[in-house]
Amino acid sequence: MDLAACYPPELSSEQKQHLVATIRDWCIHHGLAVRPPPAFVQGTSDPQGVLATNAPVTLFPSLFPRSCYEAAVSVQETYNQLYASITTDTDWLGEIIEDLVEVDDFVAGLWKVHLAVKNEGYVQPLSLGLFRSDYMVHDPSGSSKEPVLKQVEFNTIAASFGGLSGLVSQMHTSLLSSPTGQSIVYPSHPAFRGNIPPENTAVPTLAGGLAAAHKAYGPSKSSPNPLPLCVLFIVQAGERNLFDQMELATCLSQSHNITVFRVTSDEILELTSIQESNPARPIIYTPRYSPSTQFEATTIYLRALYGPQDYPDESAWKARTHLERSAAIKCPTVLNQLSGCKKVQQILATAVSGPEMDYLTRFLPCTNPGRIQQIRSTFAPQYDLAEGGRGRELALNPETAAFHVLKPQREGGGNNVYRDSIPSFLKSIPEKDWKGWILMELIQPPPAKNVALRSDGQVLSGDVIGELGTYGTILWNTNGETLHNTQGGWLMRTKAKDSDEGGVAAGFSSLDSILLV
Amino acid sequence: MDLAACYPPELSSEQKQHLVATIRDWCIHHGLAVRPPPAFVQGTSDPQGVLATNAPVTLFPSLFPRSCYEAAVSVQETYNQLYASITTDTDWLGEIIEDLVEVDDFVAGLWKVHLAVKNEGYVQPLSLGLFRSDYMVHDPSGSSKEPVLKQVEFNTIAASFGGLSGLVSQMHTSLLSSPTGQSIVYPSHPAFRGNIPPENTAVPTLAGGLAAAHKAYGPSKSSPNPLPLCVLFIVQAGERNLFDQMELATCLSQSHNITVFRVTSDEILELTSIQESNPARPIIYTPRYSPSTQFEATTIYLRALYGPQDYPDESAWKARTHLERSAAIKCPTVLNQLSGCKKVQQILATAVSGPEMDYLTRFLPCTNPGRIQQIRSTFAPQYDLAEGGRGRELALNPETAAFHVLKPQREGGGNNVYRDSIPSFLKSIPEKDWKGWILMELIQPPPAKNVALRSDGQVLSGDVIGELGTYGTILWNTNGETLHNTQGGWLMRTKAKDSDEGGVAAGFSSLDSILLV
Repeated sequence: MDLAACYPPELSSEQKQHLVATIRDWCIHHGLAVRPPPAFVQGTSDPQGVLATNAPVTLFPSLFPRSCYEAAVSVQETYNQLYASITTDTDWLGEIIEDLVEVDDFVAGLWKVHLAVKNEGYVQPLSLGLFRSDYMVHDPSGSSKEPVLKQVEFNTIAASFGGLSGLVSQMHTSLLSSPTGQSIVYPSHPAFRGNIPPENTAVPTLAGGLAAAHKAYGPSKSSPNPLPLCVLFIVQAGERNLFDQMELATCLSQSHNITVFRVTSDEILELTSIQESNPARPIIYTPRYSPSTQFEATTIYLRALYGPQDYPDESAWKARTHLERSAAIKCPTVLNQLSGCKKVQQILATAVSGPEMDYLTRFLPCTNPGRIQQIRSTFAPQYDLAEGGRGRELALNPETAAFHVLKPQREGGGNNVYRDSIPSFLKSIPEKDWKGWILMELIQPPPAKNVALRSDGQVLSGDVIGELGTYGTILWNTNGETLHNTQGGWLMRTKAKDSDEGGVAAGFSSLDSILLV
Repeated sequence: MDLAACYPPELSSEQKQHLVATIRDWCIHHGLAVRPPPAFVQGTSDPQGVLATNAPVTLFPSLFPRSCYEAAVSVQETYNQLYASITTDTDWLGEIIEDLVEVDDFVAGLWKVHLAVKNEGYVQPLSLGLFRSDYMVHDPSGSSKEPVLKQVEFNTIAASFGGLSGLVSQMHTSLLSSPTGQSIVYPSHPAFRGNIPPENTAVPTLAGGLAAAHKAYGPSKSSPNPLPLCVLFIVQAGERNLFDQMELATCLSQSHNITVFRVTSDEILELTSIQESNPARPIIYTPRYSPSTQFEATTIYLRALYGPQDYPDESAWKARTHLERSAAIKCPTVLNQLSGCKKVQQILATAVSGPEMDYLTRFLPCTNPGRIQQIRSTFAPQYDLAEGGRGRELALNPETAAFHVLKPQREGGGNNVYRDSIPSFLKSIPEKDWKGWILMELIQPPPAKNVALRSDGQVLSGDVIGELGTYGTILWNTNGETLHNTQGGWLMRTKAKDSDEGGVAAGFSSLDSILLV
């Protein structure tokens, strides 16, 4: 029986009204919240910024093939290791990045930070990655018979929604099993029978990674006197998604007894300083509201500074350099952020064709071939736009372009060019800049429907596309040693089928959970 | 040293800004929330009602004399028993109420419900009380040398804020002990040294009372087939304080595995029915969104129907009668609600003068005299307005009226007449109605200051008055047997000194916590 064909079950108007009201209230009761988007609540009507609303969520969990979920989970630790190894191989990575520098100012800026710190000498050999590998189910036949997992992108910086995703899983689980082990808020459906979302350990996993780094940092390096230690979350001013971040901070504080401070990226140079006379370069945080108090940061967790918008002027680049040269363990380092460039993903994927370019084996020498094959099978076909190459041919021909997406180096969506727009877009930019872009075959997910409650209270239903992210965290030494490598937790984001761009924070898509089928 | 004289410590502008932002975010992260008041967010700008904001809270916990806190805690179980005994003594209570019926339509309405059900015959001998006894510190000398505890009122219905109060305690505790066992968000102050609010077990205590009733109800009484059991929360439509209620529901569900449904008072007659052919009169709830599902309510918890505004028409009275005659255990029964009339409180207090009227001993025959004396010591002087009596004299003389408050029978504030307004108010109503009011000497709390973050984000500071409520719950049989009697948890509400009326929900006052000194 095809469970997906009649999913989700139709809601009566009473059911819909009750389900929406229940979810609306559940979200605020449990902190599954965001600050309202400006299009919904203007700043002038809430000058102190006290209002909150539900995060955009689906009314139903989405169905997801069990084999694909298990494949994603099973390769996560290997993916963690792969990106750690790429980051450590600065010669290999540097060659790719240096080729991008001339066409991508943002990549160039990051590379410059690395070079400056490399020139002075890095003092911290440890790096922390909190990663999220994003996938879609590829099912070109639309028959759901042999769906496979294809990677959309691998996020090496500021991978978000781990905190809220755990809450969405809890919420759907509660709705599926209330009041007494089975649901009366949902109409009955065979997919619901004895089924709840798989355990979602995103928060303990991500907090566990930060705690591992905090511990590995060791005692205070400050002189003449040691200082109390802390983790710094570097965040954007006016962040609407702060409650997601607070889930991690609360877990760090409550489960690991670790002090967390939030510092906006424009406060870094004012509130932190490096002991310049101390060769260990500990970085010291002094709260503005408690100027006589000092903490030494063991770990810098970036939830800002990941894209060009966070670098409005030279001082932001100075701040990033300042963090990078400090003794704190960075999550991520500049190099680790650069390893997430689409170009790296494309090279890994393209390399399948020739054994002499088998980068997976190069970066994962101790991994068994079966696991490497599993990783390889998650790659969608992708190409550079080199002259005379297959990619250029596919991109310029409208008939083949229609099955592709053109991506710049940046993570996080919002910058891609889709399908028919690709040929004309390429013709509108200088050909020398084409190497800043990669062409990727569009993943063709199976048809699906869902209903979403937006942050402004609107309820939308229709055809949707789901994207599953799995979280992993790794702490490694540039000497090649891995100190901590775990996977755990996941994120399901569901967006309207006709919206090609997918950031949840942008309001185009909703947080979801999954039922394995 | 007088800790209160320089409390709370002065905040620098950076400290204030940080403290307000921290509290604002903490509240939403932890569900210490309310729906925004209409004066802040108009319904038209949020038609789906998704917006939420922080509950009004104080920035600092308030100082409270340890002896007064301990006195309140130590008498709570005796107070529970006192009001259970008064409720059971229908002859005594009935005489008082029948005297009020002619001057108070609302009391009359409730009494009529009781008489109708009594006439038919009550089928449920068990009653549940979730009580809150509200106090102020009386310190007429203003020296804080010998503060004593005086009762403001005893709430026998819909005693609220137990859910949010526990969260405020958690928040102040967190602020006092962050980041590392001591605070850096507050300026240092001797009252903070090693001091956090006393444990606040309001949620488990109140949920424990509901769970005890649910269990005592026994198996389903439905015929021909037993039904699954539930607890019904009867709530007001459009309740802004629902997250307070949800804390209790979540605890009932998670800690006691009890199913809870929320029913607004105007839905009672539509969604619940009594099996009329069944002499046990079980009351059956059928969710509107799941019409084929039925649950039998063991316990009816009223967070509505406590005041005249909840009875806009005859159908509301019909609904209350419907609940009252059912087999469910009511929290509270109509009689228990009536026992909370100010007239009862006044008679208990006045009775001190003559041994033949020692109602405390009458209602607490097994309680030792020391504990009865403790109860008695919490009574503020209060009077009826009988012709030729002391109360009338004090009320009509502007000089003595200035130290008094005139209260009708209703709970919850908002209906009182204060000080200079008393003589003219009394002259404006027919003298025959005076017996509907009682006169109470105003409690004179010690001077205090605090700062509050309102739900609209405004920060107000100044002279304040605090009111401490302690929660208790009792389950008893009209045959005199007590099945469950516990105290636990408390509520501190702090309002501006110049605001004589004090409902938190009305926005005049803030949720607070206490530091014992």
